[in-house]
Amino acid sequence: MSEQNLQGDPAARVIVAGASGFAGALAAQLVWDHPRLELAAVTSRSDAGRRLDQLYPRYSVSLPLTELDLEGLEEVDAAIVAYPHAASAPVVAEMRSLGIQVVDLSADFRLRDPDLYEEWYGPHGEPALLSDAVYGLPELYRDQLRDADLVANPGCYPTASLLALAPLAEAGLIADLTINAMQGISGAGRGGGDEMHYVTLSENAYAYKVDAHRHAPEIAQELEALTPGGIDYELTFVPHLIPLDQGELTTCFVTPTEEIGTNEIAALYEKRYADEPFVSLVEEPPGVRDVRDTNECHVHAVRNGKRIVAIAAIDNLWKGASGEAIQNLNLMLGLDETEGLR
Amino acid sequence: MSEQNLQGDPAARVIVAGASGFAGALAAQLVWDHPRLELAAVTSRSDAGRRLDQLYPRYSVSLPLTELDLEGLEEVDAAIVAYPHAASAPVVAEMRSLGIQVVDLSADFRLRDPDLYEEWYGPHGEPALLSDAVYGLPELYRDQLRDADLVANPGCYPTASLLALAPLAEAGLIADLTINAMQGISGAGRGGGDEMHYVTLSENAYAYKVDAHRHAPEIAQELEALTPGGIDYELTFVPHLIPLDQGELTTCFVTPTEEIGTNEIAALYEKRYADEPFVSLVEEPPGVRDVRDTNECHVHAVRNGKRIVAIAAIDNLWKGASGEAIQNLNLMLGLDETEGLR
Amino acid sequence: MSEQNLQGDPAARVIVAGASGFAGALAAQLVWDHPRLELAAVTSRSDAGRRLDQLYPRYSVSLPLTELDLEGLEEVDAAIVAYPHAASAPVVAEMRSLGIQVVDLSADFRLRDPDLYEEWYGPHGEPALLSDAVYGLPELYRDQLRDADLVANPGCYPTASLLALAPLAEAGLIADLTINAMQGISGAGRGGGDEMHYVTLSENAYAYKVDAHRHAPEIAQELEALTPGGIDYELTFVPHLIPLDQGELTTCFVTPTEEIGTNEIAALYEKRYADEPFVSLVEEPPGVRDVRDTNECHVHAVRNGKRIVAIAAIDNLWKGASGEAIQNLNLMLGLDETEGLR
Amino acid sequence: MSEQNLQGDPAARVIVAGASGFAGALAAQLVWDHPRLELAAVTSRSDAGRRLDQLYPRYSVSLPLTELDLEGLEEVDAAIVAYPHAASAPVVAEMRSLGIQVVDLSADFRLRDPDLYEEWYGPHGEPALLSDAVYGLPELYRDQLRDADLVANPGCYPTASLLALAPLAEAGLIADLTINAMQGISGAGRGGGDEMHYVTLSENAYAYKVDAHRHAPEIAQELEALTPGGIDYELTFVPHLIPLDQGELTTCFVTPTEEIGTNEIAALYEKRYADEPFVSLVEEPPGVRDVRDTNECHVHAVRNGKRIVAIAAIDNLWKGASGEAIQNLNLMLGLDETEGLR
Repeated sequence: MSEQNLQGDPAARVIVAGASGFAGALAAQLVWDHPRLELAAVTSRSDAGRRLDQLYPRYSVSLPLTELDLEGLEEVDAAIVAYPHAASAPVVAEMRSLGIQVVDLSADFRLRDPDLYEEWYGPHGEPALLSDAVYGLPELYRDQLRDADLVANPGCYPTASLLALAPLAEAGLIADLTINAMQGISGAGRGGGDEMHYVTLSENAYAYKVDAHRHAPEIAQELEALTPGGIDYELTFVPHLIPLDQGELTTCFVTPTEEIGTNEIAALYEKRYADEPFVSLVEEPPGVRDVRDTNECHVHAVRNGKRIVAIAAIDNLWKGASGEAIQNLNLMLGLDETEGLR
Repeated sequence: MSEQNLQGDPAARVIVAGASGFAGALAAQLVWDHPRLELAAVTSRSDAGRRLDQLYPRYSVSLPLTELDLEGLEEVDAAIVAYPHAASAPVVAEMRSLGIQVVDLSADFRLRDPDLYEEWYGPHGEPALLSDAVYGLPELYRDQLRDADLVANPGCYPTASLLALAPLAEAGLIADLTINAMQGISGAGRGGGDEMHYVTLSENAYAYKVDAHRHAPEIAQELEALTPGGIDYELTFVPHLIPLDQGELTTCFVTPTEEIGTNEIAALYEKRYADEPFVSLVEEPPGVRDVRDTNECHVHAVRNGKRIVAIAAIDNLWKGASGEAIQNLNLMLGLDETEGLR
Repeated sequence: MSEQNLQGDPAARVIVAGASGFAGALAAQLVWDHPRLELAAVTSRSDAGRRLDQLYPRYSVSLPLTELDLEGLEEVDAAIVAYPHAASAPVVAEMRSLGIQVVDLSADFRLRDPDLYEEWYGPHGEPALLSDAVYGLPELYRDQLRDADLVANPGCYPTASLLALAPLAEAGLIADLTINAMQGISGAGRGGGDEMHYVTLSENAYAYKVDAHRHAPEIAQELEALTPGGIDYELTFVPHLIPLDQGELTTCFVTPTEEIGTNEIAALYEKRYADEPFVSLVEEPPGVRDVRDTNECHVHAVRNGKRIVAIAAIDNLWKGASGEAIQNLNLMLGLDETEGLR
Repeated sequence: MSEQNLQGDPAARVIVAGASGFAGALAAQLVWDHPRLELAAVTSRSDAGRRLDQLYPRYSVSLPLTELDLEGLEEVDAAIVAYPHAASAPVVAEMRSLGIQVVDLSADFRLRDPDLYEEWYGPHGEPALLSDAVYGLPELYRDQLRDADLVANPGCYPTASLLALAPLAEAGLIADLTINAMQGISGAGRGGGDEMHYVTLSENAYAYKVDAHRHAPEIAQELEALTPGGIDYELTFVPHLIPLDQGELTTCFVTPTEEIGTNEIAALYEKRYADEPFVSLVEEPPGVRDVRDTNECHVHAVRNGKRIVAIAAIDNLWKGASGEAIQNLNLMLGLDETEGLR
C-alpha cells in the first residue's frame, strides 16, 4: 500500500474527476507524487469501486475510484477534470460555484468564441464561464494563470504546435502555415474496440481527420492572439497515429513573411525560451523518446529552402495533458511552477 | 532446401547484385518466387560465402552469396543492382557493356541532370549513361519502360509522393507543395550501429534531413515533367522515422491553383488510376499496415480548407524498392506487369 | 477489385464460416489465393454486409460477409469453420449431414474423450461426431487425414509443442515435461476491450492461465498417443502473451528417461522430419520473425545439463491455425499438401 | 542545463564508472536525482568528451563523460562500476585500495567460488577480494549489506528468479526447478550490430544460450545458500529475448518436495515479503509494463497440477541492475533503503 508524497501541510486538497482515462489517471498519480498537493479523491463513473492502482498497475495511487459527489467531499480546494468534451462544462460550473479552482482537460473552455465552439463541438453548456477561463499554456499566459480560477488546459496538438511556432508568430514571421502532427496511441484514449486493438495498430500508421480537425481552430485562435496585427492566413493541420505508446511530434511548415536564416531563427528561439523551465532547444531534430514521461518540450527550427521547419516533441500525456495540468495548478496555487514535475 | 518457383523456361536469367541489404534480399526473394524468372546468382561483398536464407531466415533463397564476377557468370540476361549511391554507376556501366538489362535501385540514374546529381551526391561516374536511363515509375513511364535497357528505380519517397500527386500535377493544379513523409526502420537500411538499435528506436519518432533531403530534387524533376508548362514552385519535403518495420506514408499538402472540391478531386484520381494494377483509391486515410508485404499503393485525397491533402501509403521495401523493381523488369522483358507480384 | 487465383476447374468449392475473426479471415484469404480452391462464401454474424477486404484492408477477398445459410448455398464441397468453442459443434454437424467436408478450427473435436471435453469446455453438443474426427496435425496423422471428412484443427500451442516433442515422445524419451509458451497478440483474437488495447500491451509481457490452460489436456492426449506404452507423467503448460502481432514460441523442458547427447537428439529429429515439407530443423534457436506469414515450423533441440530443451517457432495464425487448415484441406481433397501455401 | 537533486550535504560523493552503457547511464541518472548523493563524475572510455545527456537525451545528467582517473578525483566516497565482466575486477581492486566503497554491476564478484567463476568467465583477476564481496540482493542479505564495502550486484535474471523462489527455497520446498526467463532488448546492452537492429528484433522473439547460461550457476549458488541443508537438484535456466525495451519476466516451474496448495503458497509468500519495500505480491500474473521504470518486483505464485508456478516481473535496468545498485548503496551508506527510488 503506497503513500502520498505529501511533505508538510498541503497547499491544496485536490480531486481528479474522470480519473479512469489515461490523462486523468496520470493527473491523479502526479498529484499523489506531488510534495505540496494532497490527493483527496479520484472519481470515475465507469470504474467506480476499483482502486486506481488496480486499474493501472503501473501507478501507485491506492485510493478507490468513486462516483463524483461534490457535496459529500470535504475541503476540496482544486480539481483536475478529465471529462469528455461537453460533459465537462456543467461539472466545472458546479465546482466553480463551490469555489473550487479548476483545471479542465476537455475542450470546453479552450475556444473563447462560443459560436466557434458550437461549430466544432455542438452547443456550449456554460458560455457565461468562457470569459473566466485562462488558456493553460504557461509559456504564453503565465501571469494570467497565477490569478486564474478556471484554466482550460490546451489540447496536446496545440501545446506542441504553439511551442514550435510562438517565436515566429510573435515576430510576425508567419505568412502561411501547415502543421503535420503524429501521436502515439495513448492520445486516442481508452476504449475504442477493434480500432485500438494491438493487432490493428502494430506495424501501422495513418492520418485521421484529414479534412478538418478540432485542434486547428484552437491553434488558430492562439496564433491570432500571438501575432502582432493578427493572422491573415488559413492554417492546415493534419494529425497521424503512429505505433507507440506515449509521444507526440508536430512538424510545422512555415512560409515566412520575409527571408530569414537558420542562425537568426535560432537566436529568436533562444531568446524566447531562455527562461522556460520545460522548453529546450535541441541541436538535432527531437525524438519523442527523449521526452517520454517528462513535462519537457524539445524544439528545433531550421530553414529549408524558402520555408522554415519548426518541430516540437512532447509526451502527449505529460506536457500535452496531465503534466501541463500540474504546471498550471502550481501557478494557480502560487507554488513553484516545476514542483512535482522534477 | 527450397526451390525456385520457375515454371517452364525462364524469360530471363537474373542476378541480384548487393543482395545482402534489405532491398537486395527482397529483390532476390521476389525473383526466386517469380514463375518466369530464374535467379542465377546473388552477390554481396560483405556477406560472401553465406547463403541468403541464413542471413535472412524469413527468406527461402538457398543460393550462396558470392562476390560479383560478371565474366564468370553465364547467360545473365538481367540484373537488379542494389548498391550504394556512386558505387552503382560503374557496375551498371560494365553490365550494360555486356548487354545485361539493368534495374538500378540506387540514385545514380534517377536525376537526368548530372550537375544536379553532383550537387546532391558528388561527381557522377558514368554521365554518358544518364540519357539511356528510364525513370522506373510504371504509372508514369510505362511505355518507355517496355523499351528500356536501363531503369532507374525511384526512391521510396518519390514513388509514394508522385503517386499521391500525379493527378494534380498533370492537371496543373499545384501552386505550392509541402510533403511530410514517414517511414519504418527498414528504410534506413542495415548497419547503422546504436542509431538503429532496437532500444534507440522503440517508442521513438523523429524527423531527419530537416533542412534538405536528396529525394526533394528527384520529386521536383518528375513534377516538372508531369506538369503542363512545368512548375514554378519550390517544394518542401521532410521525412521522419517511425517505429515500425516496413511501411511508408507521404502526406502531401497542396495549395491548388484554383478552387476544387473533394468530389472533383476524387473524379480526377479515379480517372487517372482506373487501370493501374497496383494503385488503389481508398475511402479512408490509408494505413501502412494495409499494404505491408505488397506492391500496392493506397491513395486518398481530399480537400482541407483552402488546401488539398493527398496521402499515399506503400511498403517501402516493395512498391518503394524491390517490388517496383520486379514490376519494371516485367515491363522490360515483355511479361505481364503483375507477374510474381500477386 | 481483386480476383481469385483459381486456375482451371476447382478441386472444391469452399466456404469459410466465421470469417471475421483473425483466423477465419486468413483462412478465407488462403482459399482465395489457392490455385485449386474456389472461395464460395465467407460468413459472419457480427460483420455481415461488409466486404472482407473492407474489414481487413490487407486482404484482397472482395466477397461480402453473409449470414451462414447452408441451404441457400449451392454446391459447397468443403468448409473451414472458425467459430468459438461449443458454437462450432452444431454447425459442423449440420454441414456433415449435408455431406460437406469440414476443417474445424475450434476445440470441439480435438479431445477424443467427451468427459475430458466437458471438464474443460462444458457439455459437448455433438458427441457422436467425435469418433469421426481426425486430429489435424499432418505430421502425425497424414494418412488418416487423406480419408477424413471431419478434421479437428489443433490448437496453436499444441501444434508447436507437439512438433517440438514428437521425436522424443515417439522414442519414449520423455520422463517429465514442462512447456513454456509465448504468443503474439493475434492469438488472443479480436475484441477484448481494454485488455487488447495497444497501450495495455505495448511494452508488456505476462503469463496467463497460470494454474491451468485448456491446451494442456490436448497436448497430453497426443503425447499419450505418440508414446509407446503411453505416458505416466503430468505435463505442465504455461502460456504468455508478448508484444508482437503474429508468432508463437514453445520452449519445452524435457527430463529424459535416459541420458542422451545433443548429437543423438539431432539425429533423432533429422530422421523424423526429413520429409516434412513444413518442418525445418534450425541450427540456432529459432525466432518467430523467421516464420512470420509462413506455414513453416522451425525446430531446435539441444541438451542442457540433465534436460533436453526443445523449441518450436510458428506463426500462430498460419501453421497454428489457418495455414494448417489449408494443409489439412489439401490432404482431404487429394491435392498436393503444400498447394496454396508456397 | 539541469541540476542535481541533492538536498543539503551529500551522504557520499559517488562516481559511476562505465556510464555510457544502458545500466551505467541509468545508475548515473539515479545518483543525479538522489537527494542524498552527489554525482562526482561519470566515466567512459568509448564516449569520453560527450555529455551524458547528449548520449541519452532522455536523461538530465549534464556532466561530461571522462576517462577514469581515480587519482585525479577528489573525495570520492563510493563508486558504481558498470564494466564488462573481467574488466571490472582490477578497477574495483584499485578503488577498494583507495578506500572507495563499490557496487559492482559485473559478474566478477557474484560467484563466491573462483573455480566456478573461471569455468564460466575465465580466470579471475582479483580472487582475494571475493571473500569481501556481499551479494547485493537486499531481500536476502540486508544486514550484511549494511556493513559491506564491496557489493556484487546480482544479474538481472538471478534477481527476478530468486525473488520468485526465495520463500519456497527457504521452506525447503523445491525438489526440482526449471526457469524460463524473457527479457526486453535493453538487457542485451548497447552495440551488437545487426543483431540488435530494430528490424531484426521487431516482431521477433527467440531463446538464447539454450544449452547453458552464466546466470544458472549464480542462481544455484544462492538457492544453495537459501535452502536448509542445501540443494540436491540441478536447475535448468533458459532465457529469451522479446521485442520490448525494458522488462523481465521469469516463470519458475517448481516440482515441490511435498504437496502444497495455492493458499499455503500465498501465506508463505505474504509472510516472507510483508516488510519488503520493493516486492509486491499481485493477484494476477504480473505484466512487465506494471513495473517499468520502477525498482518494484511483482511476484505471483500458484499451484498448477503437481507443480508450483512462481513468476516475478522486474524492470531489468532498475531492480535488475541500476535501481538495485542504488538500493544497495543506500544500505551501505546507512541511508533509507528506498531513498532516491521513490
